Amino acid sequence: MHPSEYKGKWKQLKTANKSIHLEIGTGKGQFIDGMAQQHPDIHFIGIEVAKSIIVSAVEKVKETQRKNITLINEDAQDLSDLFENNEVEKIYLNFSDPWPKNKHAKRRLTYHTFLEQYQRILKPNGELILKTDNKGLFEYSLVSFSQFGGILEDVSLDLHLLDDPFNVMTEYEEKFSAKGQPIYRSRIRFPRE
Amino acid sequence: MHPSEYKGKWKQLKTANKSIHLEIGTGKGQFIDGMAQQHPDIHFIGIEVAKSIIVSAVEKVKETQRKNITLINEDAQDLSDLFENNEVEKIYLNFSDPWPKNKHAKRRLTYHTFLEQYQRILKPNGELILKTDNKGLFEYSLVSFSQFGGILEDVSLDLHLLDDPFNVMTEYEEKFSAKGQPIYRSRIRFPRE
Repeated sequence: MHPSEYKGKWKQLKTANKSIHLEIGTGKGQFIDGMAQQHPDIHFIGIEVAKSIIVSAVEKVKETQRKNITLINEDAQDLSDLFENNEVEKIYLNFSDPWPKNKHAKRRLTYHTFLEQYQRILKPNGELILKTDNKGLFEYSLVSFSQFGGILEDVSLDLHLLDDPFNVMTEYEEKFSAKGQPIYRSRIRFPRE
Repeated sequence: MHPSEYKGKWKQLKTANKSIHLEIGTGKGQFIDGMAQQHPDIHFIGIEVAKSIIVSAVEKVKETQRKNITLINEDAQDLSDLFENNEVEKIYLNFSDPWPKNKHAKRRLTYHTFLEQYQRILKPNGELILKTDNKGLFEYSLVSFSQFGGILEDVSLDLHLLDDPFNVMTEYEEKFSAKGQPIYRSRIRFPRE
């Protein structure tokens, strides 16, 4: 069954009626697995385009026998193929490709065409949580969110200073912050008119 | 003559009809003097509450014989005493007191009560430019701007990396960035309904 056939029906999958949180670019799955452990009442869906990488996530979820995770090996170019309007409560972008050259701005996952998709599939006032170590991507994203009409709920310029016990680290974040490099995080709300 | 008597008439002062840019917390005046040199067509007004500090600015302006600067020794608690609605084109906040304790948030110059004042005296779509080395103040301010309805036009998390030839440094900025510490800057537009 293709993932798109679950569109509008994700709440029927697995234990019924859980809220849906979506991670775009799940990588090897450490974040989604940790989040799923921390929040058993939430259904976490992870999308990852690279087959060679998502296999690690699939193995991890098999190992931990986490029931509230779905992994999708797709290119997230059009999220409306996969999700109905208002179907998702939160979206996580973790250490997305910064595409540093200006001519590649359209590929950044915080470019306005992507924000339009997020707004559609998110519930009214749903949230996006961005984490990155890339200064340029973070600067760009804050401006992009604001210009799009998103409301910044929270900004941290050095996440690990906060010592947040609920922060689940990605593999990359663990390695990077061990070197003492700052991790940036922002939480953005998407109001609906 | 008290500065409040110029309210609504600032454009008649000095060379007539210049745009008005306002710096709140002018300190010893290096920024306002440098800006006034760079932009002779703009009338720069600097407000500073501390008499012992503004004297240095007054001396500097005497020395450089800059004609397009007005210095005001006042507590900027109510800017509407000094400026008419729409009278100001840009507002600069440079290295404002961060008031790090939450219970003092109301005193931060980016607290919403101040933003209301800025919005009133700024022209529609007027801009505020904030520079600071204080991470906590910068994080707080970005969220405060966004919640207030301001639109982020630009965010820099390490201003001096940009090597912007038009950036005029304050005394504090010069000293601080010489140590390799990052300077944060944001430019915010205040739309009007």
